[in-house]
Amino acid sequence: MTAELASVLDAVVAVEDLRRLAALTSDGRGAQRVAWTPTWARAREWLLTELAELPVEVDVDAAGNLWAELRGDAGGPVLALGSHLDSVPDGGWLDGALGVVAALAVLRAAAVSGFRAATLRLVDWADEEGARFGHSLLGSSAATGQLDTSSAGALRDAAGVLLTDALAAHGVAVGRMHEAGERLRDLSAFLELHIEQGPVLERQEHALGVPTGSVAIHRMLLTFSGQTSHAGTTPLDERRDAGAAAAQAALAARARAREHAGLATVGSVALEPGVPTAVAGRATLTIDLRHRTDEGLAALGSAIEADVRQIAEEERVGVEAEPLWAFPAVAFDVRLVETISAAAGGGPHLVSGALHDAVAIARSGIPTAMLFVRSIGGISHAAVEDTSEPDLIAALRSFAAGVEAVATDPRWNRN
Amino acid sequence: MTAELASVLDAVVAVEDLRRLAALTSDGRGAQRVAWTPTWARAREWLLTELAELPVEVDVDAAGNLWAELRGDAGGPVLALGSHLDSVPDGGWLDGALGVVAALAVLRAAAVSGFRAATLRLVDWADEEGARFGHSLLGSSAATGQLDTSSAGALRDAAGVLLTDALAAHGVAVGRMHEAGERLRDLSAFLELHIEQGPVLERQEHALGVPTGSVAIHRMLLTFSGQTSHAGTTPLDERRDAGAAAAQAALAARARAREHAGLATVGSVALEPGVPTAVAGRATLTIDLRHRTDEGLAALGSAIEADVRQIAEEERVGVEAEPLWAFPAVAFDVRLVETISAAAGGGPHLVSGALHDAVAIARSGIPTAMLFVRSIGGISHAAVEDTSEPDLIAALRSFAAGVEAVATDPRWNRN
Repeated sequence: MTAELASVLDAVVAVEDLRRLAALTSDGRGAQRVAWTPTWARAREWLLTELAELPVEVDVDAAGNLWAELRGDAGGPVLALGSHLDSVPDGGWLDGALGVVAALAVLRAAAVSGFRAATLRLVDWADEEGARFGHSLLGSSAATGQLDTSSAGALRDAAGVLLTDALAAHGVAVGRMHEAGERLRDLSAFLELHIEQGPVLERQEHALGVPTGSVAIHRMLLTFSGQTSHAGTTPLDERRDAGAAAAQAALAARARAREHAGLATVGSVALEPGVPTAVAGRATLTIDLRHRTDEGLAALGSAIEADVRQIAEEERVGVEAEPLWAFPAVAFDVRLVETISAAAGGGPHLVSGALHDAVAIARSGIPTAMLFVRSIGGISHAAVEDTSEPDLIAALRSFAAGVEAVATDPRWNRN
Repeated sequence: MTAELASVLDAVVAVEDLRRLAALTSDGRGAQRVAWTPTWARAREWLLTELAELPVEVDVDAAGNLWAELRGDAGGPVLALGSHLDSVPDGGWLDGALGVVAALAVLRAAAVSGFRAATLRLVDWADEEGARFGHSLLGSSAATGQLDTSSAGALRDAAGVLLTDALAAHGVAVGRMHEAGERLRDLSAFLELHIEQGPVLERQEHALGVPTGSVAIHRMLLTFSGQTSHAGTTPLDERRDAGAAAAQAALAARARAREHAGLATVGSVALEPGVPTAVAGRATLTIDLRHRTDEGLAALGSAIEADVRQIAEEERVGVEAEPLWAFPAVAFDVRLVETISAAAGGGPHLVSGALHDAVAIARSGIPTAMLFVRSIGGISHAAVEDTSEPDLIAALRSFAAGVEAVATDPRWNRN
């Protein structure tokens, strides 16, 4: 099989596209393509201008996802390719944008070379980051029927604007977002190229890796209730120090995560009254837990909750654990993972610790796979997020080769 | 020696005074006598009304401290008695108020009984709590020459009001506050009755105790600098988690305080960016350290700083320790402590872990002592702050007996 798309694909132009997009939508602090803002709309205008050069049918679905279809031969697979143009505030130039630009580059190569083995659909999912309203994977969740539109519609941004109103200003009626599902009915598969956003590939000295799925996630809020008291007059043994309990809980969570081969992160802590001269009567902290398997996550969570109860008892404070959010482990399609892996030259298999649109799509039952390219220093969601140009070019070519391998694999034909 | 003042003193009326004052200056959340506010001024108006019944000379000094002098025989000692009427927001009914009402009760008893062994000066120090502008012991520090008026004048409250302007509205010119020192020149001693604000007397089953001095205090701000990274994609061993370092530092400080027989309190912690899905790249925490001796405090501080450096190294984060504030250990006058102790029936000697106006006065070289009365549950700076009525009555009588013992002790005569 000739790697037709991969050899025709102009990876240098794709990298230039990424730089142009960054220049159009960044300031000194990084990318500002927050979904449902003018800068995000500007990013999409740029994409529409590029798509206008191609023989594609473009439209935006009921959930605000942007689609561009390059029709192939009848009977061939229908492959969706893409990611998201939206970014976090002060974000990087590659997170999401790389996957959309990769899809654009593949469509261009397919158009130039007359590639018709598959119908190729570029998709720019709307609001993957959830940076403005706190709901990530919005467009991909809506399209796959996983969005509770009534609760999502009631979310407000920091300025008090309703999600419903912000989306309406961009032509999206929240109550009808589920209609975006139409577009997925005939999909054979979804493929997404993304930066790793972690340090594993760099440490293993591989430019590319293929995730076999994504981790299970459980996020909880712990509240310790002790007794506020005077820093100068309360002997150590008489204290009911909620802050000391929180410190131990944070360290216990990490120790248990290590033991269970999972992850635990305490990213947010608050003490009350929160003054230097008072023992904290109340402490709240979030614990974000991740594990490769749902069972492993449950075991990790139970171990930490037992530790937390013991800590509370020893510190003579009360404790409540409130579940904030959970997401099960999702497996990508084994056949697609193998095909993408082969196209990528056999880079290591990973498990994605971050969520992506591909995870929402895979969870809905659509065969899905991703390709990861290494991140310098593992840093993302920051202006310094970067991947070397040779790595980007290798990733774009391997992604094209992977798309072609899937497109020409008779297992994915429609009939 | 007849305990003249103690037997004449009407402790029941004094407790009623405290309740009237609380009713005048509290709301459902507690006492609201924050210095330089209308509620504090109302407390003082109440005090002035009570003083108007007595043959005393009343005035307010250049630092806003309120004085009432009951002249005794020439050659007898000049004793200042008092505390502060100002409270923290949502404060208790006794902190400060008890000492002022006790002085009022002693002056009343002295006036009724024609007691002239000493000149007695009631003092209501202005702004002991520093609740509005963050500078505690304001009036007593100014009167004893320990206040940097230019930096204090530039302090602002939460609404942005300058301390200079707030004090001017109450007739105090910040640049002239040191002139209040005039009033202290002929003082033989200062005596203050105060609630313990801690649980030690309750635990030891004593109504009264006598502090021999106050602890040395050092307050520092620790800043750990790590690397913000993604909670899902950063392996535990690749993290530079400033929050984990902060948690260890807080626990290490407590362990060292236990070892060194001191106190360590971490009352304030902040993580950045402070979101559940990000490893904290930066963590700041305050550590308030207290010890009976300056040497003990220095040793405790050094031990913690060494721990903190080791924690930072192990967690691969940077750390800076910034001193915020320090106050040396202060000893009360040994002869006065003995006299007050005898008058109080030999209750236990303590070291005050909290600062009081008496500490500022003692530090300036004026012979000073205090009497502590037990606090229920050790709780203070809260609406539930309380002391039983029998304990209050015992404290008021013992304080009066102590004042009389000092007044009639020839060692304190002027000549």
